[in-house]
Amino acid sequence: MSQKTVYIVGLGLIGSSLALGIRRDHPDYRILGYNRSRKSRDIALEKGFVDEATDRFALFASQADVIILAVPIEQTIDFIKELAQIPLKSTVLVTDAGSTKLAICQAADAYLKPAGINFIGGHPMAGSHKSGAIAADVNLFENAYYIFTKTAATKMDALPRLTDLLSGLHARFIEIDPQEHDRVTSQVSHFPHVLASSLMNQAGDYAFEHPFTNNFAAGGFRDMTRIAESEPGMWTSILMTNPDAVLERISEFQSRLNEIADAIRLRNSEHIWNFFDKGRQTRKEMEIHKRAGVDSFYDIYINVPDQEDVILEILELLRGISVVNIRINEENREDIAGILQITFKTREDLDRAFQVIRDHTPYQVTIT
Amino acid sequence: MSQKTVYIVGLGLIGSSLALGIRRDHPDYRILGYNRSRKSRDIALEKGFVDEATDRFALFASQADVIILAVPIEQTIDFIKELAQIPLKSTVLVTDAGSTKLAICQAADAYLKPAGINFIGGHPMAGSHKSGAIAADVNLFENAYYIFTKTAATKMDALPRLTDLLSGLHARFIEIDPQEHDRVTSQVSHFPHVLASSLMNQAGDYAFEHPFTNNFAAGGFRDMTRIAESEPGMWTSILMTNPDAVLERISEFQSRLNEIADAIRLRNSEHIWNFFDKGRQTRKEMEIHKRAGVDSFYDIYINVPDQEDVILEILELLRGISVVNIRINEENREDIAGILQITFKTREDLDRAFQVIRDHTPYQVTIT
Repeated sequence: MSQKTVYIVGLGLIGSSLALGIRRDHPDYRILGYNRSRKSRDIALEKGFVDEATDRFALFASQADVIILAVPIEQTIDFIKELAQIPLKSTVLVTDAGSTKLAICQAADAYLKPAGINFIGGHPMAGSHKSGAIAADVNLFENAYYIFTKTAATKMDALPRLTDLLSGLHARFIEIDPQEHDRVTSQVSHFPHVLASSLMNQAGDYAFEHPFTNNFAAGGFRDMTRIAESEPGMWTSILMTNPDAVLERISEFQSRLNEIADAIRLRNSEHIWNFFDKGRQTRKEMEIHKRAGVDSFYDIYINVPDQEDVILEILELLRGISVVNIRINEENREDIAGILQITFKTREDLDRAFQVIRDHTPYQVTIT
Repeated sequence: MSQKTVYIVGLGLIGSSLALGIRRDHPDYRILGYNRSRKSRDIALEKGFVDEATDRFALFASQADVIILAVPIEQTIDFIKELAQIPLKSTVLVTDAGSTKLAICQAADAYLKPAGINFIGGHPMAGSHKSGAIAADVNLFENAYYIFTKTAATKMDALPRLTDLLSGLHARFIEIDPQEHDRVTSQVSHFPHVLASSLMNQAGDYAFEHPFTNNFAAGGFRDMTRIAESEPGMWTSILMTNPDAVLERISEFQSRLNEIADAIRLRNSEHIWNFFDKGRQTRKEMEIHKRAGVDSFYDIYINVPDQEDVILEILELLRGISVVNIRINEENREDIAGILQITFKTREDLDRAFQVIRDHTPYQVTIT
């Protein structure tokens, strides 16, 4: 590969983590960074994520072999326009990290293609409750999907150059059409955020006249509204740049609500049963039940008392068995929540854990 | 208290766990049980949850001082009708454990009140992914709300007799109007189940034409659809017996979807931002962020590598500090999911944990 200088535009969580991932497999590359605010710039310099940093976007652009735009969607589009005006290396490759792809790819086609600039859209599907360079994590994208979207401005070498550059992320690279990206993410991410916030707003308003609403919300409600706490600015940008797909999902969903409302109105219990059963069956077949490269998860459920060090006691018994996940749901036992739930990678690990806990603790233990 | 014989009708998870809770504070009481199928009956007898068990409902009814109906809603209503026809003790107290209250309380008014039978509705708000007597758990209702709903058939002594009988559950007893119960639970539980199943069905259908739907569903989607895997029969009964409140919630929700759809159509970013921000603020103020008797949770987030025994290593460092909850979200980092998240009861415990982990591990640790 020829590129030696990478310019990362935006040193937040995503940009800084990308820098760490690039450094892992390409320690000899020069990494330059842009960030508007000083804080993340200073951290990135101090921790060595980047070799040099600026708050003037245009400053490093002409030195770069690869430019990665890791800023909010609107700003990504503005920078794409600006890049068309700046003298760049003839072999430069531009990509981005925005959560919607169509609007960004259209901007690339409109501004970069006429200038002969090589561009491919990118969406590393990861995030965190944390933000800023301070939260940078070389493992952030491990096993996550990293989607590339080709446009009319994309040259043949774009995809192989980027998958080589980003190999240290250990992500799952995949290439799809930008419009298809926006459709699929509208269904699994953008529209669900609309639903979660709508439900949260509805319950909040209902609580004014029905105060127990605040008290009786249990595990199911909590899980359904968790994403309603996401940062409003990012989700506003997403809806603003993916309006058609989201509107289509809303409208289609309204028809489904009408249908189930009709069934309730008609007291059609068979229709209602089939509605719930279909959701149950469909979910069981989804990848959310699976793990990259592994067929499925294996869960054990242990009834533990509310005592200090009880989890420690159990993990000591399981020493040497690889635990994929662990969670307690003891503060709220409504719905299908577990007690102490431990997830293993293999059936063998699960069986060993089951035996050990059954033989060495007084706690009730079950496997699903 | 005068009652000495309790008749638990239905020896599933709820009925059996109630039996254990009664035994804890009232070991001298006689507990009789009904269950249609033999399996849970045999387990309940074998493990001593009940002293005698039958598959004929009427058999033990006349011996009972308290009858607890812990069967599905429709069967609860059938048994209420049947009780009006059976000779019972004049002081008998009847209660139930159904997830909706209005239909059951109306049946009690129609059938038990004319017969002078004392009745109060009950809803222990707990459950589990497990079922049957095999899953019985004396701690199932600990800190959970246990709602009582008075009706025209309720006599003065009903509530004090039951809270005494059930003191061993360590539940939070509360009394509200049956209609208000059904309204509030429609908002925080019944309608959210409709939403979750609708979203799951929509995504399932969308995946036929857009197969990546199955792959890109991440943490937010997974949490929002978790309850779509609930048992369809129970949720059909709930919608069938709480149709008006659920229909009202659906219709009101549709107005909200129309409103946000309008804002998207008009590209009104301020409206969209306020919509997301309101959901975020509202959720932060809800009881789901709090714990019974404790002001709030205290969370720590630790970036841990995917290695064996790393959780064990951390819990060993935290030995003696009471852990309320623990969870990893490493298989899917989309959205606001954490890395290794540990929850503590007090700010002091949090601060101690933070210091210990920072000083004794190489892992990045943050507090929110």
